[in-house]
This record gives sequence, C-alpha cells and structure tokens, in this order.
Amino acid sequence: MPTHEHMLATANSYIDGFAQHNVAAIIELFADNATVEDPVGSTQVTGQAAIRNFYEHAMSMRLTLTLEGPVRIVADYAAFPFSIHLTTSNGKRRIDAIDIFRFNKDGKIIEMRAFWGPQNNHQIK
Amino acid sequence: MPTHEHMLATANSYIDGFAQHNVAAIIELFADNATVEDPVGSTQVTGQAAIRNFYEHAMSMRLTLTLEGPVRIVADYAAFPFSIHLTTSNGKRRIDAIDIFRFNKDGKIIEMRAFWGPQNNHQIK
Repeated sequence: MPTHEHMLATANSYIDGFAQHNVAAIIELFADNATVEDPVGSTQVTGQAAIRNFYEHAMSMRLTLTLEGPVRIVADYAAFPFSIHLTTSNGKRRIDAIDIFRFNKDGKIIEMRAFWGPQNNHQIK
Repeated sequence: MPTHEHMLATANSYIDGFAQHNVAAIIELFADNATVEDPVGSTQVTGQAAIRNFYEHAMSMRLTLTLEGPVRIVADYAAFPFSIHLTTSNGKRRIDAIDIFRFNKDGKIIEMRAFWGPQNNHQIK
C-alpha cells in the first residue's frame, strides 16, 4: 500500500502538472495499464499511450485546476474536490469536479474516475 | 436512470437528515440491498437493517454535516465534499470527507462509499 504522503504528493503533482502544462509529469503518475474515466459514464481510456493523448488534448484547452478542499486519503485511494477554469469561444466556464485516484502497490494511479456532469459546467463572468 | 434533480435532492436530504437527527429519513434514501462502505476499506454494511444500525450509531455521536462545495452529478452517481463536526470527550473534531452515492433505476442509493482517512480527522478549537 502506498503511503498517505505519497498519495497526497501524487494528487498535488497532478494539479501542478496542469499548472505547468507538463503532460509528461502527469503521465508518470499513472501505471502502464491504468484506466481513466472522465467523466464517469464515458468510455474508459486505457493504457499510457491513450492516457497521454487524453491529457495532451486536455492541455490544449488550457485548463486551470484549483483544489477546492483537502485531499481525502484512505486505503489505496485519494479523492479531492477541485474546479476547472477554461476559456472557450463562447466565454469563460467553470466546471466543479471530484477526482478519485486508486493506486497500485507501486504507488502509481491504476484507476482515475472524474465525477462532474453537465450541471457542474457553468458559464461565468 | 434517476434524474439529476432527484440525485441532487437525495444528497441534500441526506445532509438534512443528519441535521434533523432523522434516521428514518436517511434510511428511506437507500435500496433494500444497498451497501455502505464508510470509510472506504472498511467492511461493507449491507442491507437496510444493518444500515439503520450504522446510522443510529452515527446519530448517537451528534455529528453535524456541512456541504463543502457543489454536489457533482453524472451518470448514476452523486459525489460531494463535506465536513463532519463532532464533540468527543477529548474535544471538538472536524473530519473532511467525500461521499459517493450510486443510484439504482428506482432512484435509491444502492452503494455509498465514504472517502476519509485518519489524516482527514483533526482536533479543532
């Protein structure tokens, strides 16, 4: 089981990776055979190559992620609330999300699920 | 699939049920064969009778629950960050948690998982 400190550091590295537009730093947090389901209910993205594509696309949207409360850590999971800010051709938007990371014994994210739906995606000033 | 509005109302009823010390109102939100895993990693509590015992015990601790951000709703899930305040013989404590509710097609909670660990449980003034 990875340590509390390791899982907390991983969540923070994930947020920081977006701030620094550093896809490589984010991909490194994931296991080779990890799955990403973002949002929950959508088709899972599986494996590092597909996950890299997913995050390269996300980065191209110039998302800003802000942690909106403490990272909850228990068993082999980290869960955290955050907001995503982005600018589209129709203006600025804010999405409120919760991510759940499950870790493998090597301390890599083996499963990521992002909880946010249409009503969590708001136009803002 | 239950509606967004129904899942949001259920999350709010759950928080309100604690404020009103109304175990019956909370139990009614769950399916007969629901599971509760609180915290994640602990033994699942299964079925309405066991879930009732679980919440009666929680109520006896005079917990106060406060929503700490918007309820995230997607697919058949509601996810929300909240804090729990309680008073023990050793003083006041705050626990930061995230609950995930999964709903069945009848709009009842079929699975509840609570993400909080020892480091999310703080002594406060």
